[in-house]
Amino acid sequence: MTTWWCESAWLDGPVDGVRVTEAGGVITAVEVADPGPGDRRLAGLVLPGLADAHSHAFHRALRGRTHDGGGSFWTWRRQMYAVAARLDPDQYLALARATYAELALAGVTCVGEFSYLHHPPGGGRYADPNTMSEALVHAAADAGVRLTLLDTCYLTGGLDGTPLDDVQQRFSDGDAEAWAARVAALAPRPGLRIGAAVHSVRAVPADQLATVAAAAQGRPLHVHLSEQPAENAAALAATGRTPTALLAEHGVLGPGTTAVHAVHLTADDIATLAATGTGVCACPSTEADLADGIGPFRRLADAGVPLCLGSDQHVRGDLLGEARALEEHQRLVSGERGRFTPAELVTALTAAGHRALGWPDAGRIAVGQRADLVAVRPHSVRTAGCAPGELPLVATAADVGTVVVGGRVVVEDGRHALGDVGALLAAAIGDLR
Amino acid sequence: MTTWWCESAWLDGPVDGVRVTEAGGVITAVEVADPGPGDRRLAGLVLPGLADAHSHAFHRALRGRTHDGGGSFWTWRRQMYAVAARLDPDQYLALARATYAELALAGVTCVGEFSYLHHPPGGGRYADPNTMSEALVHAAADAGVRLTLLDTCYLTGGLDGTPLDDVQQRFSDGDAEAWAARVAALAPRPGLRIGAAVHSVRAVPADQLATVAAAAQGRPLHVHLSEQPAENAAALAATGRTPTALLAEHGVLGPGTTAVHAVHLTADDIATLAATGTGVCACPSTEADLADGIGPFRRLADAGVPLCLGSDQHVRGDLLGEARALEEHQRLVSGERGRFTPAELVTALTAAGHRALGWPDAGRIAVGQRADLVAVRPHSVRTAGCAPGELPLVATAADVGTVVVGGRVVVEDGRHALGDVGALLAAAIGDLR
Repeated sequence: MTTWWCESAWLDGPVDGVRVTEAGGVITAVEVADPGPGDRRLAGLVLPGLADAHSHAFHRALRGRTHDGGGSFWTWRRQMYAVAARLDPDQYLALARATYAELALAGVTCVGEFSYLHHPPGGGRYADPNTMSEALVHAAADAGVRLTLLDTCYLTGGLDGTPLDDVQQRFSDGDAEAWAARVAALAPRPGLRIGAAVHSVRAVPADQLATVAAAAQGRPLHVHLSEQPAENAAALAATGRTPTALLAEHGVLGPGTTAVHAVHLTADDIATLAATGTGVCACPSTEADLADGIGPFRRLADAGVPLCLGSDQHVRGDLLGEARALEEHQRLVSGERGRFTPAELVTALTAAGHRALGWPDAGRIAVGQRADLVAVRPHSVRTAGCAPGELPLVATAADVGTVVVGGRVVVEDGRHALGDVGALLAAAIGDLR
Repeated sequence: MTTWWCESAWLDGPVDGVRVTEAGGVITAVEVADPGPGDRRLAGLVLPGLADAHSHAFHRALRGRTHDGGGSFWTWRRQMYAVAARLDPDQYLALARATYAELALAGVTCVGEFSYLHHPPGGGRYADPNTMSEALVHAAADAGVRLTLLDTCYLTGGLDGTPLDDVQQRFSDGDAEAWAARVAALAPRPGLRIGAAVHSVRAVPADQLATVAAAAQGRPLHVHLSEQPAENAAALAATGRTPTALLAEHGVLGPGTTAVHAVHLTADDIATLAATGTGVCACPSTEADLADGIGPFRRLADAGVPLCLGSDQHVRGDLLGEARALEEHQRLVSGERGRFTPAELVTALTAAGHRALGWPDAGRIAVGQRADLVAVRPHSVRTAGCAPGELPLVATAADVGTVVVGGRVVVEDGRHALGDVGALLAAAIGDLR
């Protein structure tokens, strides 16, 4: 049992002097009180653990490697595939471990890994067909964060029946039944949830969507949705339906489902997402970097759609920055400030993200919740002078001091238990080049 | 005389192993060579000094203080005026010193301060009418950065003849002649340029613009331009002209002039800026924070308008982040990546910014240029794995290691010569509240 005394803690907003008692990784008491004699002190503003609801860990190898030739999402994808074609399980483990450690430094206590890199280059199967998934599970445990493995079904190269290309062979289990059988063989472990994903309407034929949805019953189910206009055009051409309508028709949407990006939506799409209880994961740094555009996130929230946030391609390892960018992008297109309140952004970063990843018992500083605590420095060169209630809109990953995951200190004074994470990243990425 | 050996230095792009020799604050030799025995070593990628071409230092007190109530640019301005109404010269000095030190930590070696806080609260004059300007000069010297004081003419409350409100009394010299006389009394000093500014077409009557332009001959002249649609509407209603056309008509535009923001422009406005040789200063973090919108910066550059960057209201103290946001905002509205090359962004951050501030002899690592060097860490948790040529699109202020201004080390290993800048900021801002 440990009691943490927080200089300030985010309950529904910032509250000064909060004692948080933890036993077995779970919060057993929260009280506004002076520090007790044995308390461990957390300086600054303590947020609940942040959930990165959409990660492709291996994309971290592309940071600062794709800005030289212009192009589009689709030319970027070719560069991404060049990395996807090379990774072996050991390289995947090293890269994901370092990437998750970078996220932990940013205050992330739980990662949703949208994982489609399943099989050896060119196809075939590893001796254990879940070797690549096991590398991710291992990586998260080493980095000290919880993981929801969103094991992804990826079967086709496009809505027009385009066959898989050489790289995409790695992604495919052949059909949805075989995908489901492989996923069913993954053993649950503490700190791990096994979820599911439909890569996109481009990658799973309409007549196999229901199989994926059925296998995902009771687990988080994620899907890339309308990130680029070309996906919408292809879906309309092939099926006469928007991607949202297609997913709805085949039972993919619902309260356990999270649609990722949701940038290019019709009014009907927004109504469908709301009516089905589907959540949306915005990934603002990726949506800017890949020139996806600015999604209707305020309209989605107004319709009752829960929003969470993802770092996606790891163009930045700063989940607080994703929340700020979400807000800033809405300001840029609306001419209005304060499109989301700081409290709404904290909910997206914490409770909503954890719920989308299948951890309803995490993301709040409250009795019965997992003891995930993220202490943010209020007096850095970046944050000095800021009102505590607005700190989530000002602080960056570099302002995260201590990170506690399920009662365990993973980051202390900005240093990760694994040591120099920059060096781990450089080694893992260097090994790929 | 000092010789710096740079692991890598940005000449037209990154070059490994560059010796830079400095004497009297000026670069006397640049050579690709192994380090010599007495060389001082700069690790990482060494950029030329960055120029923050548009700063309102006192706005730093508003960071993280205006996000709670929604609103617009105009409601934000009321909060800003509440700070403007209070500052005395000592408070102004302390706040500007800490703010400029934050900029130095971010690699800024030269600041353009767009300064309109001239007189005591409610009007009147300080014993030295340039007391507030002298506070800024003092602050920059303490922080170790060069300063271009863009002393700003501010005379009216609006294009419709609205009188100055109580706070705006501090800004006004009465008329343009009196403004010019006061500015003429400022003595030039090493490390200081005296420039001029028209606050905006809202604040200087059309019939006094020519007086300001004449007084600014041979100095940098800056002007806020079309930051908000309301300014355009007011100008059209009052004069039948866009703000750009109005400035052109009265001789304010030209190669010595920099238009700040330039977000809401017509095609004719763009052509006018290009034809007159006027530069544009984008302030992307402010333009997002204040919901200004996304300016036509790629179209301006294509028309031949030189672009530079400013941190403006100091919503972030990260000039590298301004360059990244400039590029990201263009991606968001165009659907295309690589709207600016990394080299174009470095030019905006360095040589173009210095030129806009009247320092054509700064902003490049070349013989005859001022010895301003900014070493950026390539192996941090943020930058690890990045290609050197793309580092300017990835690194943040937190990745700046050493900063040399005119041969003098101002920041070493991320620490400013003044000490804990977060504490300086907290004290200066706390004193105001």
